Order: sequence, then structure tokens, then C-alpha cells
Amino acid sequence: MQKLANDILLKSKKLTEKGNVAEYIPALGKADPNKLGVCIADMHGNIFTAGDYNNKFTIQSISKTITLMLAIMDNGVENTFNKVGMEPTGDAFNSIIKLEIVSPSRPLNPMINAGAIAVTSLINGKDSKERFQRILDFFRLISGNNKLDINNEVYESEKATGDRNRSMAYFMRDVGIFEGDVEDILDVYFKQCSIEVDCIDIAKIGLFLANRGIIPQTGERITTENVARIVKTFMITCGMYNASGEFAINVGVPAKSGVGGGIMASVPHKMGIGVYGPALDNKGNSIGGIEILRQLSKQLNLSIF
Amino acid sequence: MQKLANDILLKSKKLTEKGNVAEYIPALGKADPNKLGVCIADMHGNIFTAGDYNNKFTIQSISKTITLMLAIMDNGVENTFNKVGMEPTGDAFNSIIKLEIVSPSRPLNPMINAGAIAVTSLINGKDSKERFQRILDFFRLISGNNKLDINNEVYESEKATGDRNRSMAYFMRDVGIFEGDVEDILDVYFKQCSIEVDCIDIAKIGLFLANRGIIPQTGERITTENVARIVKTFMITCGMYNASGEFAINVGVPAKSGVGGGIMASVPHKMGIGVYGPALDNKGNSIGGIEILRQLSKQLNLSIF
Amino acid sequence: MQKLANDILLKSKKLTEKGNVAEYIPALGKADPNKLGVCIADMHGNIFTAGDYNNKFTIQSISKTITLMLAIMDNGVENTFNKVGMEPTGDAFNSIIKLEIVSPSRPLNPMINAGAIAVTSLINGKDSKERFQRILDFFRLISGNNKLDINNEVYESEKATGDRNRSMAYFMRDVGIFEGDVEDILDVYFKQCSIEVDCIDIAKIGLFLANRGIIPQTGERITTENVARIVKTFMITCGMYNASGEFAINVGVPAKSGVGGGIMASVPHKMGIGVYGPALDNKGNSIGGIEILRQLSKQLNLSIF
Amino acid sequence: MQKLANDILLKSKKLTEKGNVAEYIPALGKADPNKLGVCIADMHGNIFTAGDYNNKFTIQSISKTITLMLAIMDNGVENTFNKVGMEPTGDAFNSIIKLEIVSPSRPLNPMINAGAIAVTSLINGKDSKERFQRILDFFRLISGNNKLDINNEVYESEKATGDRNRSMAYFMRDVGIFEGDVEDILDVYFKQCSIEVDCIDIAKIGLFLANRGIIPQTGERITTENVARIVKTFMITCGMYNASGEFAINVGVPAKSGVGGGIMASVPHKMGIGVYGPALDNKGNSIGGIEILRQLSKQLNLSIF
Repeated sequence: MQKLANDILLKSKKLTEKGNVAEYIPALGKADPNKLGVCIADMHGNIFTAGDYNNKFTIQSISKTITLMLAIMDNGVENTFNKVGMEPTGDAFNSIIKLEIVSPSRPLNPMINAGAIAVTSLINGKDSKERFQRILDFFRLISGNNKLDINNEVYESEKATGDRNRSMAYFMRDVGIFEGDVEDILDVYFKQCSIEVDCIDIAKIGLFLANRGIIPQTGERITTENVARIVKTFMITCGMYNASGEFAINVGVPAKSGVGGGIMASVPHKMGIGVYGPALDNKGNSIGGIEILRQLSKQLNLSIF
Repeated sequence: MQKLANDILLKSKKLTEKGNVAEYIPALGKADPNKLGVCIADMHGNIFTAGDYNNKFTIQSISKTITLMLAIMDNGVENTFNKVGMEPTGDAFNSIIKLEIVSPSRPLNPMINAGAIAVTSLINGKDSKERFQRILDFFRLISGNNKLDINNEVYESEKATGDRNRSMAYFMRDVGIFEGDVEDILDVYFKQCSIEVDCIDIAKIGLFLANRGIIPQTGERITTENVARIVKTFMITCGMYNASGEFAINVGVPAKSGVGGGIMASVPHKMGIGVYGPALDNKGNSIGGIEILRQLSKQLNLSIF
Repeated sequence: MQKLANDILLKSKKLTEKGNVAEYIPALGKADPNKLGVCIADMHGNIFTAGDYNNKFTIQSISKTITLMLAIMDNGVENTFNKVGMEPTGDAFNSIIKLEIVSPSRPLNPMINAGAIAVTSLINGKDSKERFQRILDFFRLISGNNKLDINNEVYESEKATGDRNRSMAYFMRDVGIFEGDVEDILDVYFKQCSIEVDCIDIAKIGLFLANRGIIPQTGERITTENVARIVKTFMITCGMYNASGEFAINVGVPAKSGVGGGIMASVPHKMGIGVYGPALDNKGNSIGGIEILRQLSKQLNLSIF
Repeated sequence: MQKLANDILLKSKKLTEKGNVAEYIPALGKADPNKLGVCIADMHGNIFTAGDYNNKFTIQSISKTITLMLAIMDNGVENTFNKVGMEPTGDAFNSIIKLEIVSPSRPLNPMINAGAIAVTSLINGKDSKERFQRILDFFRLISGNNKLDINNEVYESEKATGDRNRSMAYFMRDVGIFEGDVEDILDVYFKQCSIEVDCIDIAKIGLFLANRGIIPQTGERITTENVARIVKTFMITCGMYNASGEFAINVGVPAKSGVGGGIMASVPHKMGIGVYGPALDNKGNSIGGIEILRQLSKQLNLSIF
């Protein structure tokens, strides 16, 4: 497995030249596009790593899966999905059109930005500070890394350039999807996106999902099997932006990507995989990261289909 | 003419029972739906009034025409229409869809909310206070009423419930239609919508437009004939929300309505008409006001077509 | 006037180099882009011509205004506008989106293709042959040209490449906007678009509209003032494709263009103007033709606003 | 297993009262809404049945999965997906909007009608008769039922009422997604939708997919593992109309439904399941059928997530 990881990383490295780092959040534009790393964490406690696996990056949209778990744990399945739908969408992750067309208005799923913001608004807490602290604690708990924290430069950059998210949030408040202070909710959202991780962290979270909500190292059940299953389902149907369908066909593994360059994959009953490569394809997914997952799936026969 | 005004008012009064006052801005919901008034101001200095012509109401979307004049005077035709289009739209006045679909993104015209907000952002002034003061001064100048001012209760109500406008404003800042503080721009916009007028005030502004930018009483040219013509054209193509086409066919006079219940009409070379009736039809236009204008157009043969 | 026409034609000629002939209907692609002609027909029976005024071209979308008259005469205002709306649209002339989004489904106006096809379906006649004959007779009647007929090559070309129109027509039949054989209705529509005219013909039709439905030469009333007014209103609000608003501002005269290169203008109470120039701008309007109308409006102060 | 099937059928039966049979295709409206049947076919050759398992019904949209296999076998993966995308959509199965908005125009996936029609156009054959025969032969081959044939009444009914499909097909031909005679292609499409099956037939096709393209009874490989995987992936991401995401979460098994009341499910490496119940929910899925699959998944732990 270690050799396989090394080989695949080497082969995938060339692809990084064909991608570009995200630039719409200025602070992300500083990443080195040549970086590429992978971590595989299996059910037996083994950790295999290769390349720039210990490079730090911000978790970005991968956080949507984790906050969703906490929101369901806080509110129950039914209340959560009264606010956000379960269906994939062919629109862009930051599209606002369906909020206007669909009646009653509701973000189609928790993986697009509008849906993720609605989910963040559901997290319990007496104020935005407590809400974010609960999210951060949950990230730390399921990654087993107590040192997880936000990257302040990225957080400030997101906040400064987050007007599209503001637009969606005000639209949602207008149609009653949530109440409360929009900037407060967005502040929590921008912070959760700015949590800094490495490949090991997200591999472990992927493993936690693969293990149905139980931390393998300790045997501690954190959430129900149903919640873990819901999250993995969304990872298949809408985890890779507008390339989710193609990824499901070519790789066949629940995965969630972020524009920071990370992809968290969860192979049910088997393993969690974390990859990092900030050079993105035109859909916003790590170009080298996708190739690593494709190769791993092929070599290890990981597709769930 | 005076008799005609009285007769038409009487006949149109019954229709007010079929409409409803605007409720999406709570303060507007307090209006008395039975009110109906009209004022006709002609080129010879005559003023004919009937019914509740001296009832105060907030100008709302009628203000879009006036601020547009000032914006063009401040920036020129070309710069203004780089920010906002000239084309009518079949979408709702508060629709956000086209901002996402059309490329490059630009509100289709200055009569929909997105376009009007973009226009307000173009008004010169060192801060939002000065910007609004210039707008208010311009309203006072062309109405000949130095006492025009905002209705604070309505202004506060608009501000408190203006999330759809916030959504559009942040979207526009995201795509570069304007820079600057969104709440500041919206504050000016909410204030301009909350200026309180009566039928005489808007009849006089309509007359000013009919007289091609010259105040008839004084002979003072305030703006160019071209600017006055641009505004009257928008009043025909998109002045009556999603009933602009129908109104142009049935009445055929440049007119702009507001959800406060007012309609300002401008019959080129002839007269300005102000009507007020807060009972609205399902398109957001004064139901009695439209009937008054339809009757006047028919009896006096006012259609420009 | 004759000198003015000559001068303006000469000045506008240069612009033809910047346009392109329509190519989506192959037979139209053969037109000579340098052609430019104009005819002005006034209420006193004067005809002024310049340039390629006697060049033949197919009437294309200009026909929408004429068939609309006949449809209203056949069905009444109310029945006609139960099938097609009165509102301008910001969408393209061949857009199908609103047919799906708007509920109940109805083309927004009779100047976009969907609306024009719905209008054609309303023409009385026992079969498509009789229906088209009635349309052709009506064109002949109001143009005073008994020799008007279709250009067979263009008709065949339209029929062969009219799939977008077929798509809209089947959608409309699906939602109940009309019944009957789709190819039959489209056949009439393709034929009416393929009627061959010159500048004099459309100037005379424009004059007929300007004269409120009465043929000036004979004094014969063909249709009501109301019908003529409806058509002129649509020419202002949606006669020039997605540049209708801009044209209304810059020229201010009811006008309808066709991709064959013609524009028919109607100045209420004054004159009809026919221009021809197959070099089109990117909105599908004759680039030289628009310039001629702009100059005429400016020099003769024709704007209705 | 047999007892489980019986129990679940009994429990699910009540739900059929809450659904309605499809009525937009008149011939489907005649089905008995109380019918409910199930067949489970496992890898060991066992067949378990309960209820109205041997009732005949038309396969409708379930056929999309099967024709897709044949299209890929005829054209290869790349050529096929040049014509149709791989991404789920939040729009309705018969929506035409994305064909206009997305550039270049392409149906988002092969499970919506536009995509399925494009796929049908890819089937090899010298004419539509041969094309349909090849499709029918393929259905017979993988179901192991040589007697499969079309229900003529349903076929005629689909053809008579298929205007929305015609609209999409002409739009697609207009933008170059396919060439050839539209009615010919639609004829093949309407026929493939009208193939009559029972629960056993579709359970066996589901089993064939579960067995990665090999007929279990004979060991004969009909298509590649990759093709079988592609189809199962689409069944998860877009097999259940606009309830695909919800079904993936609640049931977690690749499945494709049809408005005839059938659902074909394929549990990778384990079994095929066919259910039938013409009472549909408001998304167009068999209401009793979904409940049977939900219970089976829960009791047998079939979710792939």
C-alpha cells in the first residue's frame, strides 16, 4: 500500500501543471500549485502517506460535510431537511437562480453554498462565537487533532470577498429560510471554511465516516450510522461540484473537495483518504487529487458501484 | 377638465375595493385602501385636482425615474448605461436571475430594483448623506416643493425588510457593478423611496418631463431634452412593473408607478398627471389609479401611439 | 425631404461595412451587405426614396406586426391576448425558457417567435392554404401592392432550418396554447416570413399604421384605431429584438425589424418609413437601417417621447 | 427471504392508497392503483416473489438505463458522453431550460428525457426499425425473456401525447446534438418506453447489472464491468427523478423508476430487485415500490453507503 501510494503520487504529479490555484479568494492564490500529497487511513489503524501530505491547507467546502453532521445532531434529520433539500443540482455551487425559481424557496442540497450557509445557521449556540467553537470542537473530535484552528489570513480574505455568499444569505433570510444576523452566520461560515488541516486530518475524518460514525482508534460512537450514511450519500451525489457525476462514474467513492485543494474521500467499511493539491481543474477540484483517487480506486477496486 | 377629473374619479373609485395595499413593507400596510386622488398639471399652469389629491404617500419606485435623471446628469449617458441596460425585462422587478445568467452581468434597466440601486450608486457625493441630500434637493427642485422630505417610519420599515434588495446589491458588488459600502448605498436608496409626496408633487414632476426638462412656471432648463426623453421612454417600456406592455397598449402614456399607490404620468408636450390610490392590483400598480389614467387617455386622446 | 433622404443615406452607408448578413437561414446569407435603401411615405401621398429602395427582400419578423392585426380582427383583442401576452421580455427572440418557467405558460408577447407562431395559429381559415392566402391578401391590401408573394428559396430554407421554431411550437401545443398540426402552422409562419417586399411596400404599411388603420390613398378603414395602436405599441416595446429599449431611447419611433434587413417604422399621424440594409448588427437589426432612422428622427424631430 | 418479501409487501400495500396513477399518458391512467408486487433475484439463482409480481406494465424510463448500455457498447464511452453529460440536475425530467442556458448545449445526463432521447439517437441501425429491433433484442437478452415486446396501446398513446419530447428533440437537433429524422428517433424512443415487462424481468436486469455485466445463469459476459458500473452510478445520482437524492439517503441502492409504476434496483454483487405499483407519489415514483425497497434495504442492510 505504501508503495502504491508513492507510485500513484509520482504519476499524478505531472497533472498538477495543467491546473490553477483558486484566485477568487485572494489568500488562496498564494498556494504552490506543484504541491501534491496523500494520506490513507485504514480501519486497522494504519496510516500511509506520500508527497506533501503534511502541508497545511484550508478545508473550505469539505467543511460542509462536517457541519452538516453537527447540524443534524443538533436538530434532527427532519428539521434539518426542512431548511435544505436532498437533491443534487446541475447549477453552479454559487448559483442563486433556484432560490428564486423553486417554490417554496429552499437550497437544493447542503453541498452548494446556499445550502451550506443554511446548515451553518442551524448550529446550536448562544452566539456566533459559541456556534463556531462547537463546530471547531467537533472538527477536532472527529479528526483526533486538538490543534486544528483557523487560518486567519484566509478567513479575512474570505470575509472581504464573500459578497456572493452575502447575496445568497440575504435572499434566504428574505424568504424565511433563516432568521438572525446575516453577517454573524456568514462569519461562522467563513471561519469553518478557513480551518486549516493536512491530509492526515481529512483522511481520519473520512475514516470516521467510513466507520459509520465511530472513531476507530477509540471505538467511541460520535454520531449515528444514519448520519454518517447521509453525509456519504451527499458526497457521491454532490461532493465534487459540477463534476460529481463524472467522479462517481470514474472513481465511485464518496468524496468532498474544497477550493483549497483538498479532497476528503471515504470508502465505506474500508478507509479514509485525504489528498491535497491546490492546482484545480476548471470545475474547482484538485486536478492531481482526482487522479490519485482515480488510480487508488482502480488499483484497490474501491468503487461502491 | 375639472368636471372630467371629478367624473372619472367617481367612476374609478369602485375599483379600489378590488385591490390590496402593499404589505411586504409593513409601514405601507397601514394605508387606507379607499383613498383615491388625482392631479392634472398642464403646460399653461393650470392645476386640476379631485378626490384625495392632497393625501401624502411615499414615492417608492417613482423615485427611480428622478434619480436616473440626476445620475445621467452626474455621469453622462454613456457611463450611466455602462452600469445598467436599456432593455425591458419580462422578469419581476425584484428578480435576481438575469444578474446571474446575463454575461457580462448588468441589470437590464433602471426601473427594476437592481438597476435602480445601481443608478443610486452613481450619484455624486462625498458620502451617503451628501448623496441623499443631492437627490432630495433635486426632487424638491423639479417638483417645486421645498418641503419634500422622507417619511421616517416607512424608511425604517424598508430598511428593516429590504433583504431582497441587499441580496441584489451584494450580487452586483460581487460582479463589479459597483464598489463601496452596500449598506450605505441601500440607505440612500431606501431614503429616496421614502420621500413623501402628494398628487400635485408628482403631477408637476410629470409636467417637467412633458416639458422636456424645463420647469414651465419659471422657464428654467434643469436637464437636457435628451435626458427627459430617456426617462419618458423607460416609463413606457418598463414603468408599470410587469404590466408595462398592457398599460402602454391600454393607456399609451409614459407613466411610473410605486407600491405606495402613486402613479406619475407624463404626456409629452401636454401635461403631467399624478394619481394616488394605495389599493394595488396583483402586479403592484394602483388599481384605481390605472383606471383614472385609462379614462383620461381615452377622453382626452392622450396616447402617444 | 428628398435631399435629406439622400444625405442621410449617404452618411449611413459606411456603417454597412460593420454589419453581417444573417446566416442562420442559409438563403439569407446570399444578400449583398452593401445594399442600403430607404422610402418615406407621408400622409399627403408623397413618396421619397433613396438608394436601393427597390431592392427585394423577405419581410421576416416585420410580418409579425401584420399577422397580429389580422389575428385580432379574426378573434378580438381578448381572445388573442389569452394566447399571447402583452409584456416585453429581456430574453432572446427565440428563447424557450419562459414557456417553461411562467405559469400558466404563454409567450410573453407577439413579437418573439413563440408569440408570433401562436398568433399565426389564430388566423381563420379552413386549412393552412386558406390561412396563408388570407394573410397574403391582407399584406397586399394594406401595402397596396397586389403583386406581393413569397420567395420560394427563402421559404424552403426557413422550413429546412426551422427546428428552434418547431421546438417552441411543440412545447406550446404540449401546454395547450394551440391545437392542430404543428407543421401546418409552421408552414404558414415560414411562408409569411418569406413574403418578398421592398422599401416602398413596408413604408406604406407603416403609413397605414401611422394613419390609424385607414389607407390614406383611398380613405378606406381596414381595421380599428385600437388595433393599429396596439401594433405600434408593440413596435416600441419589443420591435427591435433585444435592442428595443435602446432604439426607443435613441430613435423614439415605433419600428419593427426583420433579419432580412428590413425595418418598418411608423410615425403616428405623420409617415411610414421603410428601410433596407441586410448588414445586421449583433442584435439582428439592420445596422445601416437603424442609422437612417436615427438621423431621420433627429432631423425631423420624430420621437414620440 | 420469501417471508420477508411477503411481510414487507403486506406492510407497504397501505401506502398505495396515497398515490395516483400517471395520467399524462392516457393509456397509463387505466392501471389499477392497488396493485403491488416484488421480485428479488439473487446471485445464486434464487427468485423470490410476492404480490402482483407477474402483472405486466410498460418499462417507461427504466428503459433509459438499458438503452444507455447499448449506446455505449455501440459508440464507446467518450463518443456517448460527448452527446450527453454525466451530471445530475435539479430540474424536472422534462425540463428544456438547461438546453438553452448551458453552453455548449447538451442534456445534463442520460436519465432526463432530453438525454435519453439523445442516447437513443446513438443506437446503431440502418433505420429506425432496425434500431428498435436491436434495442428490443438487447432487452430480451439481458432479461432472459425472449417474449418481451411492446404494448401497442401505450406506444400509440405516448406517440400521440409526446409533444414535450418533440420540443426537446427539435431543440437538440437545432443545436447539433443529433441529426436525422426527429420523428424516427422519437418513434424508437416511444417504443422502448412501451416495452412490457413484469417484476421478474426487471429484477433479472437489475441482477445482470449487480453481476457487473455477466448473466449469472449462463456466465456470459454481455458488456464490460465499466458499462455496468456507469449505469449503476446514474441510477444512484439520477435514477429516481427529483427524489434521487432522498432515495439514495433513505434506501442507498442504485435504482431506476418509470411512470408505469416499475422500479428496477440493483444491489452491487448481491441481487436485482423489481417492484411494481402504479400508484405514484408526486415525484413520479411508485409510492409502494419505494417503501418495499426502503424496507428491504433496512432489513437486509443493502445500502452501498
